[in-house]
Amino acid sequence: MNMTTENLKIVSLDVKDVRFPTSLGAHGSDAMHVDPDYSCAYVTITTAMGKKGNGLTFTLGRGTEIVVAAIKSLTPLIVGQTTVDIYKNFGSFWRSLTSDSQIRWIGPEKGVTHLAVAAIVNALWDLWAKLLNKPLWQLLVDLEPEQLVAAIDFRYITDVITREEAITILRDAKVGKDERLDVLKEDGYPAYTTQVGWLGYSNELLEELCHKYLAAGFTAFKLKVGRDLNDDIRRLKLVRSIIGDDKELMVDANQVWDVQEAIDWMKKLAGFKITWIEEPTSPDDILGHQAIAKAMKPLGIGVATGEMCCNRVMFKQFLQADAMQFCQIDSARLGGVNEILSVYLMAHKLGVKVCPHAGGVGLCEMVQHLQMWDYISLSGTMNGRTIEYVDQQHEHFVDPLIIKNAKYQLPTYAGYGTTFTGETLAKYEYPNGTVWIEMFGKGLYQSPKQL
Amino acid sequence: MNMTTENLKIVSLDVKDVRFPTSLGAHGSDAMHVDPDYSCAYVTITTAMGKKGNGLTFTLGRGTEIVVAAIKSLTPLIVGQTTVDIYKNFGSFWRSLTSDSQIRWIGPEKGVTHLAVAAIVNALWDLWAKLLNKPLWQLLVDLEPEQLVAAIDFRYITDVITREEAITILRDAKVGKDERLDVLKEDGYPAYTTQVGWLGYSNELLEELCHKYLAAGFTAFKLKVGRDLNDDIRRLKLVRSIIGDDKELMVDANQVWDVQEAIDWMKKLAGFKITWIEEPTSPDDILGHQAIAKAMKPLGIGVATGEMCCNRVMFKQFLQADAMQFCQIDSARLGGVNEILSVYLMAHKLGVKVCPHAGGVGLCEMVQHLQMWDYISLSGTMNGRTIEYVDQQHEHFVDPLIIKNAKYQLPTYAGYGTTFTGETLAKYEYPNGTVWIEMFGKGLYQSPKQL
Repeated sequence: MNMTTENLKIVSLDVKDVRFPTSLGAHGSDAMHVDPDYSCAYVTITTAMGKKGNGLTFTLGRGTEIVVAAIKSLTPLIVGQTTVDIYKNFGSFWRSLTSDSQIRWIGPEKGVTHLAVAAIVNALWDLWAKLLNKPLWQLLVDLEPEQLVAAIDFRYITDVITREEAITILRDAKVGKDERLDVLKEDGYPAYTTQVGWLGYSNELLEELCHKYLAAGFTAFKLKVGRDLNDDIRRLKLVRSIIGDDKELMVDANQVWDVQEAIDWMKKLAGFKITWIEEPTSPDDILGHQAIAKAMKPLGIGVATGEMCCNRVMFKQFLQADAMQFCQIDSARLGGVNEILSVYLMAHKLGVKVCPHAGGVGLCEMVQHLQMWDYISLSGTMNGRTIEYVDQQHEHFVDPLIIKNAKYQLPTYAGYGTTFTGETLAKYEYPNGTVWIEMFGKGLYQSPKQL
Repeated sequence: MNMTTENLKIVSLDVKDVRFPTSLGAHGSDAMHVDPDYSCAYVTITTAMGKKGNGLTFTLGRGTEIVVAAIKSLTPLIVGQTTVDIYKNFGSFWRSLTSDSQIRWIGPEKGVTHLAVAAIVNALWDLWAKLLNKPLWQLLVDLEPEQLVAAIDFRYITDVITREEAITILRDAKVGKDERLDVLKEDGYPAYTTQVGWLGYSNELLEELCHKYLAAGFTAFKLKVGRDLNDDIRRLKLVRSIIGDDKELMVDANQVWDVQEAIDWMKKLAGFKITWIEEPTSPDDILGHQAIAKAMKPLGIGVATGEMCCNRVMFKQFLQADAMQFCQIDSARLGGVNEILSVYLMAHKLGVKVCPHAGGVGLCEMVQHLQMWDYISLSGTMNGRTIEYVDQQHEHFVDPLIIKNAKYQLPTYAGYGTTFTGETLAKYEYPNGTVWIEMFGKGLYQSPKQL
């Protein structure tokens, strides 16, 4: 291949609305999001020589069309650019995407426009890894500290970490890198399951799933809580009795409580030996989480949050304020890999464990790369860290994740792992995929034209 | 008129993309937003009997189409509802708009979807005031404390203010209400001008404008800063020399600095007797603003922020942390009047002055109502408070604001003041208004089809 500048030009950016009708089975329901249709805005970036990168941002069904509109509005900032120039100075390019002088107003760096940036930037990283024929984790591991840090926009976070500090941290972390890579190759990265504890599930299903995931080797389990205290107690008692006292048990309230309510409710669940309470209140409430974390400390319960934490400035404060003991970066809500790297670096500096949010469409596929990079090249430890695992929608990807004995296996394919199969796109593109046309016909969903 | 339930049903919600080509004259430029085209997403809600309410959210040009898409996606939540039911339990209805179980994911309560909620909710308040044939401020003043508070969603703010506290505060504030209304009728509410200090303006224009606004009675002036320290000093020196030492001088950095940079830069401007530094850093950085506020205190400079503060949870923390001394609510970024009322109540309880952000399309028209309500029914004082004033785009409204002797005059028309004239819509609707077609023809702008 002739890698001239012209050949490396980005000639198109395509975006699709892809939805899976998960609400029909109450899969993925929680106290706040009762009927999600797991979905995504799915980006394909193509270079002049036909190389493609795919990236996505996770959504819950309705509203995906708004994110698609935002991606279309950002497209002129990407098409016509040359990949070499982007990757050489990725931090500056990232800022140009998040700081368009007119579009910035309707964010900035949050909500729909930031989700759009996430999908686009994730596609650019997938493309980069594919151009180099490497898995994304390896691209990150192989970048020299100076190169990796060049991808980060340090605006607004220099009071916690500077470019120079980040380079020093990454240089120091090189020791033992090869040994850690060998560990991952042999053993993989530990996962925990959220699948035993969705709110919509019956007692019988709960028992069945506990046994299933125990048999599969899982040692950490997460339950949704917050709709009804007595029901939470009943379910926690049941699950704890099945999994035993030596396993980890986490709970997730999906933002249903006010600050004092969270503290009062959790005091009543503390007897079940809970590792963390996830999203106890508004994802924007740093000081609220700080108050909850302070009240939970004597009970041995940490606070986990991050899946709806909108940008590095918010993460910075959660970390500064000791408001999160478990930092749950989201690979499709933060503005792609660039911004995620800055959060990993801040968490590392401030001594907070990163345990990524996953489970939505493509999230497990992505975060395994990030967390494995962290182990090899940054934190150097898996101690107290774990990646969320939900067994849904993996079959739709060309390179689905591999879990063995409850551990994510090191990916070997080129890219970030979020390329859909052609069959999936033909079936689930909304609203014209074959599955959707069938469901509109059966009256299971209303077509957008009927609304 | 026969006000039956059926007649009060909302039968349609129309949304238009309206843009003014302000970037051609560098009007409204700042260190972060260098070429804004002042714009808005403009909502018209119509009842069965033909009564209309208008509401808008301010934008800067590109990206308005994304907000329009979001308003369209929320429309099924409004059309078919009955106004009586909405206004009877407005807080619950507001929560239903911000908490759609699928759309919530792409916010929540921030960015594009929250701007969409703002435009819709503002239209609902305009409609309510028009149904009662009152100016919006009077509707607010006439509501009993229990009714007003019923419009507020207290989720996530009960650690600072509860429904019961809010009712008590409003009841206590009734004393002297009539006298304060008389003051407003006679004298109006003080304004400050931002118009002397846009970054794009020349020295000569700066002098001319200072004299113009002094002659018009203004006693408070705001300058944009942050692009070049020497240039800031030169301009502040010039302006202070013209307006004299007895006038208020504020500066606005529009988020260009990191935390330490803000502190260092402002120390060099402190000699000019500055009332507040506005938006010194990221609008999301509560702890950063707290650090800046602490460093500014000995210099007699307050921190002002809020025009990009996305919701009541963020305002709550800025107020709790003593991170803002001037609370600049934005009538089109917060989710409409309902959420704004909660911020006024929290600011009042925590002793922070509200000085609304205005100047964008329709913002001056709206905030005068809110600030006048605050004076009559909540804070009871204008001490240290002022409303931003920029003389742009007022001529496009059916009921433009009236400024006399640098004071906003009490509105007397029915509604919230944000109904465009038919001529304006015909000219400036994007991209099919006559002015836009003319500009595409002249090559001054590219039409969306050319992009």
